[in-house]
Amino acid sequence: MKTISENRAFGGVQGVYSHASDACGCDMTFGLFLPQEAERDPVPVLWYLSGLTCTHENAMVKAGAQNWAAEAGVALVFPDTSPRGAGVANDAAFDLGQGAGFYVNATEAPWAPHFRMWDYVTEELPRLLFSAFPLAQERQAITGHSMGGHGALTVAMSFPGRFRSVSAFAPICHPTGSDWGRKQFTAYLGPDEAKWAGHDATLLMRRRGFDGPILIDQGASDQFLDLLRPEALSEAMAVRRQEGSFRMQKGYDHSYFFVASFMEEHLGFHARALYD
Amino acid sequence: MKTISENRAFGGVQGVYSHASDACGCDMTFGLFLPQEAERDPVPVLWYLSGLTCTHENAMVKAGAQNWAAEAGVALVFPDTSPRGAGVANDAAFDLGQGAGFYVNATEAPWAPHFRMWDYVTEELPRLLFSAFPLAQERQAITGHSMGGHGALTVAMSFPGRFRSVSAFAPICHPTGSDWGRKQFTAYLGPDEAKWAGHDATLLMRRRGFDGPILIDQGASDQFLDLLRPEALSEAMAVRRQEGSFRMQKGYDHSYFFVASFMEEHLGFHARALYD
Repeated sequence: MKTISENRAFGGVQGVYSHASDACGCDMTFGLFLPQEAERDPVPVLWYLSGLTCTHENAMVKAGAQNWAAEAGVALVFPDTSPRGAGVANDAAFDLGQGAGFYVNATEAPWAPHFRMWDYVTEELPRLLFSAFPLAQERQAITGHSMGGHGALTVAMSFPGRFRSVSAFAPICHPTGSDWGRKQFTAYLGPDEAKWAGHDATLLMRRRGFDGPILIDQGASDQFLDLLRPEALSEAMAVRRQEGSFRMQKGYDHSYFFVASFMEEHLGFHARALYD
Repeated sequence: MKTISENRAFGGVQGVYSHASDACGCDMTFGLFLPQEAERDPVPVLWYLSGLTCTHENAMVKAGAQNWAAEAGVALVFPDTSPRGAGVANDAAFDLGQGAGFYVNATEAPWAPHFRMWDYVTEELPRLLFSAFPLAQERQAITGHSMGGHGALTVAMSFPGRFRSVSAFAPICHPTGSDWGRKQFTAYLGPDEAKWAGHDATLLMRRRGFDGPILIDQGASDQFLDLLRPEALSEAMAVRRQEGSFRMQKGYDHSYFFVASFMEEHLGFHARALYD
């Protein structure tokens, strides 16, 4: 593992590191914020999965999360959103290929050799992080924005007991029912829709739900509402009597200004679960 | 004036606007955050002047200031750092030309026709802002980072009574005594050092000081300490018995992580002065 940069931030350290990834077959870069408390003891950790076009860096510099993470004594992990590099397949569209891994293991050409973001964020990167940094494996939570909200919700529901809480900002809620999903799942997973079901937060909510609290914020003026399908997940949460809140925030759009505006409340939500 | 974008943020609006600038002879872009309170009444305003290589956008998305501005009911203005465009002179170095206006009115070729950032931030942009937006002209404060800290300090000391308070993050403190200053002042203002004195915070502090409180934060691990010359200004402040604080922050560097880490305290400092 290579240290790209380390900056003092809010009493802790905002680091950026790269490593050779077996899952993705390329070098991967991630951000990690460690609060001051990590100098003495392992600290709880909040995963932040990013959205389309993002790298590890966007949320790290624009979401304003470190302030609240420092206050709560919680670490933040910012993984990249796809494999990258000259030898990695790509597409001219912003919502397929590099920057758009959708947190699945691709089985189809030309994506299968590298696009294994599910294994990367659920197996390889956790193993690396918990061996290399003072993080408390039994105190994890997860959040994300847009495509990363989709990732956070599907990962959280697929590993019962691993995460104390899950939240999302404007998540892709029902990818099997919209063009942010059908297009990518066809490309990455093939045409058999049965293989898509494990990567759709609404379907997972209908089938099993999450064994902890959920917090979802959605901007009412989001330019991508038709692609996100929040109503599908909101209904599924209510039908299941899922513990949690789905909040429609008047006037907010899909940007990081929206994410930053509600970051304090999300960090507070996770901190309560992590220290319970 | 043209609206480039408006995003709901922290209950207010983060806008980006452009306009034809007489001072700079080109179109100029700025960011303006208006807190929710501006929907009803004029609000106090904090100017944020940015550093080398920055546009209006960097601090707007990376400094985390809107959260605290919203809490305090204070507007934020983010001007650009130089004139820009194909017809505007430039230099290959990152610290001269576009992105490096140094908040002076250039008198020398090839800079004189456009590089009039002093007039822009002290006359033209204020006139535009106070006519177009609900801002309280009698409640202004100013801050900045690096080259923008230099701008904030020199502007504040040059217009007694205009600003209630001034702060800076890692400001260029003594440009006539370092290569972040001598090089640019020679290019923009010519070799006569007498013309430089009005743009050196340390010299202005020795000569007249500021008629209000000053807050300066400087990272002790800043990679540019030798160019910033904080010791010169710190000494001058102490000699003058200037009301204010000069704080050396252990472990912090020159990045926006440093700026963001202390933004809450700077907003609080200015809010106290603005509502006094």
